Amino acid sequence: MENTKGTGEVPAALRWLEPPAGPALELLDQTRLPAEEVFLTCTDVPQLVDAIGRLAVRGAPLLGVAGAFGVALAAWRGDDVAAAAAALTAARPTAVNLGWGVQRALRAYQVAGRQPRVPGQDSPAMAALAEARAIAADDAAASAAMASRGLALVPAGARILTHCNTGSLVSAGSGTAFAVIVAAHRAGRLALLWVDETRPLLQGARLTAWEARRAGIPHRLLADNAAGSLFAAGQVDLVVTGADRIAADGSVANKVGTYGLAVLARHHGVPFVVVAPASTVDFGTPDGASITVEHRPDEEVTRLAGQPVAPAGTPAYNPAFDVTPPGLLTALVTEHGVIQPVTPGNLRVLGEGAASVATPQATLYVER
Amino acid sequence: MENTKGTGEVPAALRWLEPPAGPALELLDQTRLPAEEVFLTCTDVPQLVDAIGRLAVRGAPLLGVAGAFGVALAAWRGDDVAAAAAALTAARPTAVNLGWGVQRALRAYQVAGRQPRVPGQDSPAMAALAEARAIAADDAAASAAMASRGLALVPAGARILTHCNTGSLVSAGSGTAFAVIVAAHRAGRLALLWVDETRPLLQGARLTAWEARRAGIPHRLLADNAAGSLFAAGQVDLVVTGADRIAADGSVANKVGTYGLAVLARHHGVPFVVVAPASTVDFGTPDGASITVEHRPDEEVTRLAGQPVAPAGTPAYNPAFDVTPPGLLTALVTEHGVIQPVTPGNLRVLGEGAASVATPQATLYVER
Repeated sequence: MENTKGTGEVPAALRWLEPPAGPALELLDQTRLPAEEVFLTCTDVPQLVDAIGRLAVRGAPLLGVAGAFGVALAAWRGDDVAAAAAALTAARPTAVNLGWGVQRALRAYQVAGRQPRVPGQDSPAMAALAEARAIAADDAAASAAMASRGLALVPAGARILTHCNTGSLVSAGSGTAFAVIVAAHRAGRLALLWVDETRPLLQGARLTAWEARRAGIPHRLLADNAAGSLFAAGQVDLVVTGADRIAADGSVANKVGTYGLAVLARHHGVPFVVVAPASTVDFGTPDGASITVEHRPDEEVTRLAGQPVAPAGTPAYNPAFDVTPPGLLTALVTEHGVIQPVTPGNLRVLGEGAASVATPQATLYVER
Repeated sequence: MENTKGTGEVPAALRWLEPPAGPALELLDQTRLPAEEVFLTCTDVPQLVDAIGRLAVRGAPLLGVAGAFGVALAAWRGDDVAAAAAALTAARPTAVNLGWGVQRALRAYQVAGRQPRVPGQDSPAMAALAEARAIAADDAAASAAMASRGLALVPAGARILTHCNTGSLVSAGSGTAFAVIVAAHRAGRLALLWVDETRPLLQGARLTAWEARRAGIPHRLLADNAAGSLFAAGQVDLVVTGADRIAADGSVANKVGTYGLAVLARHHGVPFVVVAPASTVDFGTPDGASITVEHRPDEEVTRLAGQPVAPAGTPAYNPAFDVTPPGLLTALVTEHGVIQPVTPGNLRVLGEGAASVATPQATLYVER
């Protein structure tokens, strides 16, 4: 199931393999970066569920793509597609995009199955695959739109702090927050990228530093708790993060540590911007308190790189996410526009279609 | 220079070895905890300087003790004592206690050397050793005093969050912040101790979790950046930390990450208490901006347990300390009493001798 490829160009984080190599999903195993580029070939849904659960494939947008391809994989194999969809959705309960991508592919599969078979028309399995490919294409287009809209919020000479990993490893495109950072770099507006290492799984150190290096972006890595001293020294002009789930009131669930950065940014008067596709907003979750936060195994904190870093048996507190209330957000950048301020009314328009007013700074969504 | 001893009782972090085993200083190598209890025997000052520099011996109070014994070691060996004192002081520039302990032993050595030799009177080397032993005894007594004074600030059923390591591994007694935690546990007031892992060197995970376990204190370990979600959930009643240096205005230099906790505590209305001996206050440093913050090697962030956690060559930002302004402190607990609020006027009394007023809550220092 594993094979190693040499380094070079940034590899795609996820690829659909056609027969005869497939049907299968090829994933870059992100738990092995930056030391090795190892690819996993998932030939069935349990393998993909395992890869999602242990974060070999991760990040809100890419999980939507992976979930949809997972449904297509079950359909191509002739497996129970509804059961596969349920297993995929349950693999990461906090990741709303995962369930969203699964549902889109499942619906395409079911709709095609209900129609009379006409020669030349897509089979249900082909319909699911076409839907997964459409989600991937939409994701790439959304990345590009978020990048250009978010760029309007980046001042010249910006020193940007980011948390976790939000680039091409988590997207079929250039990502979310990292797409804005890449756009700022290309526009000559980025002086320096501060990369939080992002304990416990070190996505910043392992993945974002790797992406920044590949993209030629000047960067420095820091232990998460060194961020306070950067703010105090006036070395941060903007904080940009992604989001795993956004409630209807604008509360943002994102990688643990995001909330502490938002509090520091507020204390120091530094803008705090979240970049996420509209699909991240879950209108079925009314507020931050309603978000289910996944708690992950103690060993992620008590061991590191296979070595114990705490006495054996030490109990840990290991939430994967925290929740930042909307009052601490300066703006939310989506592919449809910039929401500023982040209020339930301004957010609602994402569920209703675009109603926007152009301002000199960016596009401001307003209630209809 | 190394030997391994079995686990069991908490071993002394530092011991003076008399001839014929010495003269030497035996140190518990804290970089090897919690996996192994390895002792280093430093038979000369360069070995001790190396041990201090790589944090095998660490923590403000214990560094004062170690520095004084280092001067005694140089004197017993017949080395250039002034040069040894300078090398010891330079081993950790931010640790004011280190230089303070070195100066006390050096002065005792010099005073004894200036006096005519009288039979039965201490030699200069014996005077330096006696001074080092007096510093160790004072440290143990100060720990006990801080513990009882700090206990007055701990509410019943307290869930206390602490950062870095401040117990018997950093003191000739029971420590600073950790001494208060032990006292709260013994008094039945401690519901739970939250232990920050304290990246990059993981003193919380490796050392504080180890001390808590040995002391039978209920505790849970967390990645530093999970603290925000604890505050948001109302799970922290009190933050207690130590200090490496306190400026005359009350600004506290302590392990990086302390400032972020102070900002979170303020945002959530949770008391933030610093526990440190009076010797930590450096009246020669007027304010926080005047504190020299030590920057440590990039590899402490980019590697962990000998393994790379970031791409090779990734540049890092790695300050050992940050500075918390006095306005964010609820109180400063010293062996002489509790300073509340922390103001230059209230602090000054520590340099002038005790002038205190008893209040129902604690002893409040006031300007004379």
